[in-house]
Amino acid sequence: MSMGAVPPVEPVPADSITAFDHECDVLVVGFGCAGAAAAFEAATAGADVLVLERAGGPGGSSAQSGGELYLGGGTAVQRACGFDDDPDNMFAFLKAALGPHADEEKLRLYCDESVEHFEWFRGRGLTFNETLHDAPTWMPLTTDGLMWLGENAWPYNTIARPVPRGHRPATEAFGGWLLMEKLAEAAKAAGAACHADTRAANLIVDGDGRVAGVVARRYGETLTYRARRAVILTTGGFVDNEEMLADHAPVLLGHGKVSDGLDDGGGIRMATALGAATRRMSVVEIALTALPAILVRGMLVNALGQRFINEDVYPGLFSVAAVRHQPGPYWAIIDEKGYEEIPPEDLWGVRPRFVAETVAELEESLGMPVGALEATLAVYNRHAERASDPYFHKDQRWLRPLRPPLAAVDPQEGFAPGDAEGAGKGTGVAGFTLGGLHTTVDGAVLNHSGRPIPGLYAAGRAGAGIHGEGYISGTSLGDGTFFGRRAGRAAAGE
Amino acid sequence: MSMGAVPPVEPVPADSITAFDHECDVLVVGFGCAGAAAAFEAATAGADVLVLERAGGPGGSSAQSGGELYLGGGTAVQRACGFDDDPDNMFAFLKAALGPHADEEKLRLYCDESVEHFEWFRGRGLTFNETLHDAPTWMPLTTDGLMWLGENAWPYNTIARPVPRGHRPATEAFGGWLLMEKLAEAAKAAGAACHADTRAANLIVDGDGRVAGVVARRYGETLTYRARRAVILTTGGFVDNEEMLADHAPVLLGHGKVSDGLDDGGGIRMATALGAATRRMSVVEIALTALPAILVRGMLVNALGQRFINEDVYPGLFSVAAVRHQPGPYWAIIDEKGYEEIPPEDLWGVRPRFVAETVAELEESLGMPVGALEATLAVYNRHAERASDPYFHKDQRWLRPLRPPLAAVDPQEGFAPGDAEGAGKGTGVAGFTLGGLHTTVDGAVLNHSGRPIPGLYAAGRAGAGIHGEGYISGTSLGDGTFFGRRAGRAAAGE
Repeated sequence: MSMGAVPPVEPVPADSITAFDHECDVLVVGFGCAGAAAAFEAATAGADVLVLERAGGPGGSSAQSGGELYLGGGTAVQRACGFDDDPDNMFAFLKAALGPHADEEKLRLYCDESVEHFEWFRGRGLTFNETLHDAPTWMPLTTDGLMWLGENAWPYNTIARPVPRGHRPATEAFGGWLLMEKLAEAAKAAGAACHADTRAANLIVDGDGRVAGVVARRYGETLTYRARRAVILTTGGFVDNEEMLADHAPVLLGHGKVSDGLDDGGGIRMATALGAATRRMSVVEIALTALPAILVRGMLVNALGQRFINEDVYPGLFSVAAVRHQPGPYWAIIDEKGYEEIPPEDLWGVRPRFVAETVAELEESLGMPVGALEATLAVYNRHAERASDPYFHKDQRWLRPLRPPLAAVDPQEGFAPGDAEGAGKGTGVAGFTLGGLHTTVDGAVLNHSGRPIPGLYAAGRAGAGIHGEGYISGTSLGDGTFFGRRAGRAAAGE
Repeated sequence: MSMGAVPPVEPVPADSITAFDHECDVLVVGFGCAGAAAAFEAATAGADVLVLERAGGPGGSSAQSGGELYLGGGTAVQRACGFDDDPDNMFAFLKAALGPHADEEKLRLYCDESVEHFEWFRGRGLTFNETLHDAPTWMPLTTDGLMWLGENAWPYNTIARPVPRGHRPATEAFGGWLLMEKLAEAAKAAGAACHADTRAANLIVDGDGRVAGVVARRYGETLTYRARRAVILTTGGFVDNEEMLADHAPVLLGHGKVSDGLDDGGGIRMATALGAATRRMSVVEIALTALPAILVRGMLVNALGQRFINEDVYPGLFSVAAVRHQPGPYWAIIDEKGYEEIPPEDLWGVRPRFVAETVAELEESLGMPVGALEATLAVYNRHAERASDPYFHKDQRWLRPLRPPLAAVDPQEGFAPGDAEGAGKGTGVAGFTLGGLHTTVDGAVLNHSGRPIPGLYAAGRAGAGIHGEGYISGTSLGDGTFFGRRAGRAAAGE
């Protein structure tokens, strides 16, 4: 190619490019779950599809994730496990759990077509065992195909009929690699090509404002790609970009990152440089390394010994409640009886940081005000004796008075002694970003007047999805693939 | 003028305009405090300055504000009242109180040059009485020229030497009108012209990407303005734009708005449509209509009877702590003795919603879990007997055990029976936005590569200022005028 100096992220005029190095109909930028879904649909619709991936091959952050897919409305797995679900019920739960301020238009579609989306995954070769994992956890170490993600916890169990919707590919623990293996295979089988080690840097724009391709870099070389129909940005979020975090989501500064290390917001920046609008750039997912199996049997308290949420909610929700809203450090408090009742496979090697024969002693070890934990325990026990939790309505199966000796577990120590930094060790907190480009339900990227930017689409965490200020596992892979598919079809139809 | 169809907020190419209706050197868009300060300095530097104001005359939201200016470092008023301040001390307080994540580069300049900025206000004809208002309040009804804004509250009193820095123009209660009267006079006296009833709609951009003016509307007519040197956006925040609130700061949806009704984010949208970057769009100021005079003598609790902050902090900080982070409704709890000790002029007509002879009775009236308020009061009183508050370190002059009969005041009722909606009645909450365009210390608006957009400046709430996630009264008028002045000088020098 031949062209002048290229700006860092600002768009490049098409007329400055004399000849393109590569051409295709639909150019997908980023080969994670959203990119794979978009590429599959666009290629299936007959478009000549090319996927650019800055890493050595497909996968992205999706491949390193747990692989849970939030699906429901009456899937085959739900039915086989004896659960009766429907789209309205699923919508009611997600509207509350992903809220406040979930995107109801996107969410409505996502729920209405969730069974079809589930079957789409099966059609791509993913299998889901028809067994339920029925214990509170971040991630089952089993191959169960279905898990609860807080649907049975207050207040959600009063808003929607409790039904589990965490769908897990048939593999132990982390399943993202398997999901991406199948989706990348499917995209390639449908005809999509992939240029790996190729990082998109700028959008190319026609004289009439239409996105016509991208400028990319590969091993120090500058390459130009022309997209005859559209460009789809599926470049992920921006948790790996410290400057963007400082500008938009400083709550994650200094904490662990749930990503493959390449979520630097490049796609978001390329599009906003062209005048694309964003939504909810401050919203994040947060994981606190506190173990649900301990918490449900004990209590989660802040630095002042106050409880602040029912400990049996989806773990991402107690994490956000703690990190965003409470003074830390946070402590999982449990008594000897409760600790001994935890099944060994659910304990993940977690050990208490402090143990004490009296509440006063534990309070002192934790640096709390005299009487603070004692007051919290006294009211908790008073109600727990009658299997009641009028503060936060933890399910009664977990409610009984907590009696010394007591232990305190410190999330800053990570789950287990051998844990790596990425598991939250250090601060005990890791997360990723949920805000991004403002898109229609078909993935069209909107400008600041609410009008689509011609030729430009986005899906996955480069865009703002179904989420309000809440997050539930499986909704990021879920909406990334669901709206990635829609973007792929719309782009192919341009 | 003659031109084709004008897009809602996207930029208009200069070559589509055959003749401009008006020309000037520096075009200031918005005649609030930042616009007045920018216009004054640009005109004083010799530029031909024109200010566009969409309302019938100058003032904006600044004129409807309290008029407090956060200034210090050793002003004449501070010295006359017997306080020893310096820029480092001021910086230490603001870095903590406006944090986390305050803009330290802007804040450093703001503190270093605060005495000069104070003298600049005096030079524009504002007077400040050399008397201190020494009681906790949202706003003194007196003409005292100096007030505390939480500098003497924990943890700030451990971070910086406590010195009051709330500077008040010499008028009773709301002083924003007086501030704007003087600043608008000064700008006009320096030579700045004003076109009122004129709403800027689009930026005009040269072929080389330089901002060259604006397209505006007046009474249905479309007008073009050419700016030979630069455009300065001082259009305010976006609290009056429901769609922008939903996209960026949904916490304020449904609440009262602290504005003149015209803070619709127009300037932010015009600039982002051109590829300008933003910062901290989710950050807001919040005012809860809870009376400091009651709170310091009692306690502020959430819906579950839990305390969460020392009640003697700057009221904006307890408001954010409540509305952003705690389950509502919130209650001001006070005993009979405390209520009777409040000077009548500090009570503002506020009355309890519930009174009760016992804690149990009050708890029930407030719908709290049995024992919840009792537990909080027991620990509070246990420590208050020794004038100690190990939870939140409220100053010991306010600490004594609270004994029944007790009263609960409901912020949702507003301050006084006659209060209008704008004072927070309804939800008890009102606020404005603090995020905006990403600017240098000289007001240059940056693009997504961190480079200035030629010819474009911003100040006031159209830009992101000194604030992190915290807010202190007087820092918005303060940084709006301070960085407005710098933008005016830089624009005149282009």
